[in-house]
Amino acid sequence: MPQRSALIPLVQKFFEHDPVAAAHSLETMKESDAIKVLRALPAGLTAEVFRFFSANQAAELIKDVSPEVFREIIEKLEPRQGASLFMNLSPDDRERFLEELPPKTKPIIVELLQYPENSAGRIMSTEFLAFHTGVKVKDAIRRIRFLARKNMPSSYVYVVDSEDHLAGVINMRDMVIASSNQTLENIMHVDIVAINAFMDREEVANILSKLRYFAAPIIDAEKHMLGVVKADQLLSDVQEEATEDIQKMFGAGGDERSISPVLFSVQKRLPWLYVNLGTAFLAASVVSIFEDIIARFTVLAVFLPVVAGQGGNAGAQSLAVVMRGLVMREIPRNKVWTLIMKETWVGLLNGITIGIVTALIAWVWHGNPMLGLVIGLAMIVNLLAAGFSGAAIPIAMKSMGLDPAQSSSIVLTTITDVVGFFSFLGFAVIFQEYIG
Amino acid sequence: MPQRSALIPLVQKFFEHDPVAAAHSLETMKESDAIKVLRALPAGLTAEVFRFFSANQAAELIKDVSPEVFREIIEKLEPRQGASLFMNLSPDDRERFLEELPPKTKPIIVELLQYPENSAGRIMSTEFLAFHTGVKVKDAIRRIRFLARKNMPSSYVYVVDSEDHLAGVINMRDMVIASSNQTLENIMHVDIVAINAFMDREEVANILSKLRYFAAPIIDAEKHMLGVVKADQLLSDVQEEATEDIQKMFGAGGDERSISPVLFSVQKRLPWLYVNLGTAFLAASVVSIFEDIIARFTVLAVFLPVVAGQGGNAGAQSLAVVMRGLVMREIPRNKVWTLIMKETWVGLLNGITIGIVTALIAWVWHGNPMLGLVIGLAMIVNLLAAGFSGAAIPIAMKSMGLDPAQSSSIVLTTITDVVGFFSFLGFAVIFQEYIG
Repeated sequence: MPQRSALIPLVQKFFEHDPVAAAHSLETMKESDAIKVLRALPAGLTAEVFRFFSANQAAELIKDVSPEVFREIIEKLEPRQGASLFMNLSPDDRERFLEELPPKTKPIIVELLQYPENSAGRIMSTEFLAFHTGVKVKDAIRRIRFLARKNMPSSYVYVVDSEDHLAGVINMRDMVIASSNQTLENIMHVDIVAINAFMDREEVANILSKLRYFAAPIIDAEKHMLGVVKADQLLSDVQEEATEDIQKMFGAGGDERSISPVLFSVQKRLPWLYVNLGTAFLAASVVSIFEDIIARFTVLAVFLPVVAGQGGNAGAQSLAVVMRGLVMREIPRNKVWTLIMKETWVGLLNGITIGIVTALIAWVWHGNPMLGLVIGLAMIVNLLAAGFSGAAIPIAMKSMGLDPAQSSSIVLTTITDVVGFFSFLGFAVIFQEYIG
Repeated sequence: MPQRSALIPLVQKFFEHDPVAAAHSLETMKESDAIKVLRALPAGLTAEVFRFFSANQAAELIKDVSPEVFREIIEKLEPRQGASLFMNLSPDDRERFLEELPPKTKPIIVELLQYPENSAGRIMSTEFLAFHTGVKVKDAIRRIRFLARKNMPSSYVYVVDSEDHLAGVINMRDMVIASSNQTLENIMHVDIVAINAFMDREEVANILSKLRYFAAPIIDAEKHMLGVVKADQLLSDVQEEATEDIQKMFGAGGDERSISPVLFSVQKRLPWLYVNLGTAFLAASVVSIFEDIIARFTVLAVFLPVVAGQGGNAGAQSLAVVMRGLVMREIPRNKVWTLIMKETWVGLLNGITIGIVTALIAWVWHGNPMLGLVIGLAMIVNLLAAGFSGAAIPIAMKSMGLDPAQSSSIVLTTITDVVGFFSFLGFAVIFQEYIG
């Protein structure tokens, strides 16, 4: 076997040749092994590889590097990546992280962190090119040439007036085709879409994607330019936000990840399991009202899971479709009622179809047509209620200023359980003469 | 009141001034009114506004415009927008749409449609700038200047060799700072990330977002350049795909939208409701095995919803966290078992906590400690199974080449219902001496 020291240069080659593939390989290794590899590499290379980790992976690994490597990594990262990394650390590590920040990066990260989570300000890049209106094209190009050597990213040139208000934008193609003695004022576009730093990132993604812009300037209330937000940065953010919603629906908490430690997960999920336990006992108490009729006909107990299961599933279908419409901003305010009515109709029609089939199965299984009637009627009522509430819950939560995803599934199953059991056992009481 | 004809110029002003806001206003109007407005406008303006509708909204409205306006709209749209619009039409309208396509656009749309749905090829833009390696910078710039007048989008210049294979890429900034007599070969970057036309768009989004590129070239198997995919195009696509997953989990079908007609929704959801009905009867048959013990202690029936509800919710939490990890590609192959084990541990720990609380409530409510023991033990077993299956189901489906979202929630609740009822009623049989 070759010695460990002989392997290092090989590994180094891999990292230099393809840092993305190398970062990916590290992600698939055991954490302790990954740390060993990172420690064996020159600090500059480690920092390079860190650029390609996801924020939570980076937070896992950065805890264990030496203070020197730590500094170098942060210096290599874009400030927004640094901020994102910072937010993924535990409170203790955050403390340490802030102290170790290089003096150049610290104020930038601190500034980014003052914007609300999920806002444009939090994810903007503060590296951008801005010139004043009177600057000549040739002078701007000289400056761009100089900055290119320092690896300054640039696809748009922003133009500001004498009071530093954003006045226009020029894309690089316009710079290419402009004649060199024109001033920037002459070639800039003035119809700019500028984004307030407090705007939600999903909204920003929506604007960029509708207008087909790959970047937009971020401004404060006085129209001073603060930074730039780019479509490629937003890609993982919107994906993250949409998948967060699924977790929130079931009360798993938006900040939990698949690699979160066991106790973190337990702590995040347990409160909602208690809420769900409370609502489950609510459903149980509905059943307990009807204990007498169940004592007479134990077969009713057998059908309870069918009632609960169908209502829950049909309601979840409505909920999923409406949640998607809300996320994709396809539901204008004045169409809210149309949508709730539509889902109620879908619930009714599915209820009738499923109700008839269930009634027939129950009849055949237990040889009792009246039992079939009872479960069939209950199914119609329950699926109607499921369609209505699946649409109404997220819409109501949104109009109350709440997050429509938050625990919507828990609220929904409570309603479908209560309505389902009430109607099923209620109809059983009404028709009890004929069931026996 | 001003006459209708007097209003038209005003509306026209609005559309010219801010087509995005105008498109949004139209989306919030009744469809028949929106059609009337679109018909009253000059065709060119209608086409302009159509660029800002979402694909399904556009498909709703385009059905009712005149053939001339139809043609003009399609000519104004990018081919990928046209293709997307086409896929949102009903089969009948597709027929009509294909016949009406302008001869310039038709072959492009037909070509795009040969790539699988959700692939890079389907969403690529076929408008891009490519030059051969030997071209001089000044000649390229002359050409770019000419194309700019025709509104040709360009942020990168692609360079191909004599056999039209993709050889390099130049961003516009490099063009700005290059000296005019250099050949493109001298200034191009050769380490290109080219994307195969068949790659899934979520994977493409992942690559762009990791590398911080806002565009990438699309190639075929022979490395011929076919088109370009841009980050801003992908934004709404990845959001759509992530929210589609929520719908699929409950069997609502990925192609249903909040504005889909009632019968379309019924037709998409009903098959899965039948599947769910089948699994609900499976759970019911477990209960029916234990009818004797329920006849003896009807209080057991009261607790069935608690068992089912907690198992379902805890399992859904695991499922949501793992689904998110899969979508965000945070789960490397060799960590799959670690994750399943982790979720099982979370299930066990939550099960113990929730089990103890439930046992105490049951004891206090019904004054029977042994009933508490039975439900408490069942809760531990059920939440353990819920954690395990919530993680194992999507992972197993993915490794079998299936879509991990597809109906995973229906499979999951079947498992938690069956395990929950079996353990709860089973423990009741074991401890029946002591319950009474």
